[in-house]
Amino acid sequence: MNHTGNTPMLPEPTLRRLPWYLAYIDILKKRNVEFVSSTNISKALSVDASQIAKDLSFLNLKGKTRIGYEVGALSSALEDFLGFSRRHKAYVIGAGSLGTALIQDSGLSNYGLEIVAGFDINPVRVGRNECGVPILHVDDIYARMESEPAEIAILTVPVDSAQESADIAVGAGIRAIWNFTPYRVKVADGIVMANTSIYAHLALIFNRLNTL
Amino acid sequence: MNHTGNTPMLPEPTLRRLPWYLAYIDILKKRNVEFVSSTNISKALSVDASQIAKDLSFLNLKGKTRIGYEVGALSSALEDFLGFSRRHKAYVIGAGSLGTALIQDSGLSNYGLEIVAGFDINPVRVGRNECGVPILHVDDIYARMESEPAEIAILTVPVDSAQESADIAVGAGIRAIWNFTPYRVKVADGIVMANTSIYAHLALIFNRLNTL
Repeated sequence: MNHTGNTPMLPEPTLRRLPWYLAYIDILKKRNVEFVSSTNISKALSVDASQIAKDLSFLNLKGKTRIGYEVGALSSALEDFLGFSRRHKAYVIGAGSLGTALIQDSGLSNYGLEIVAGFDINPVRVGRNECGVPILHVDDIYARMESEPAEIAILTVPVDSAQESADIAVGAGIRAIWNFTPYRVKVADGIVMANTSIYAHLALIFNRLNTL
Repeated sequence: MNHTGNTPMLPEPTLRRLPWYLAYIDILKKRNVEFVSSTNISKALSVDASQIAKDLSFLNLKGKTRIGYEVGALSSALEDFLGFSRRHKAYVIGAGSLGTALIQDSGLSNYGLEIVAGFDINPVRVGRNECGVPILHVDDIYARMESEPAEIAILTVPVDSAQESADIAVGAGIRAIWNFTPYRVKVADGIVMANTSIYAHLALIFNRLNTL
């Protein structure tokens, strides 16, 4: 994958850990703590301090010896770096129970995700409006990409429509698929793919409960 | 961790893949396909066929040479094995936007998760009722564990309450924490912990979009 943007392409484990640091640092900010060291973060989150220093080195933000990082600056730098302070427009494909729930979850917008339209094929849902977000017919996705383009499609359709819906979204110009279905959707190279495996996590919890 | 239940403790990667197989097999079932082989599943999901055979070997279900597995039997066996066909009671801690969304997501109940109560400290939320699920004050969790016990607590509180809420839930007798907050919650040995890192996935999508 070529890297042509201004952001370095980060390893997935780093991208998993950085939001943990941000969450912890935001708690410190609320408590008016001024400085934080890798060692402090390490103790709180049980992540190796040298790993934390390595992860934070991507940010071009220098900590001071013995004092550490300035909490406010580190919080802003992490938010900017993770893209949470910019707005990224998204469509929800599949305005059923989970899709509608995500549209209604105002928390996502605090992390830079702005859902601007929902799509469905069910006539009961099409034409509705959820928290100011219009639910349109899937066939209208091409026209909508002209009038209110989005980069990300959030897939919350039934499993047997998952691949087809992803294909339609990509065909319409969507650049990233965030897949909430348990189906393993395939996309072409160059399309960003993220799976949030709610059902795999349920399976993990159930299995561990039964084996404890 | 001791294994005293009837279910073998499965490796996490296997638990991640089994729901993929189930999703695919349920599509075949809808299409009235009768038999499926590891090779079929392998082609559809781009998972190595020997890996699939290995994952499915945990199920005590034998495929027939050249024909493969009977679709209906494999689907039922997977559902049973993953715990999706049994009911597991859960509380939602934090009845804000995401918590309420999960309560309203009827899809989870199809996978064996039954949310029986929500908890919050906000007087505006406490006393409400979401889709038949009562929202109670967090202090009432101990009493509720007597009258309507749950095994799983779904954490959807603000980050600065995440650890405290988990501690309260575990103190009340909860055996598994499903953490939707970006805070890295710590629990004692023997408590099941699963993190659904919505924000880490957003960070991944944003980063990849910026580096494409």
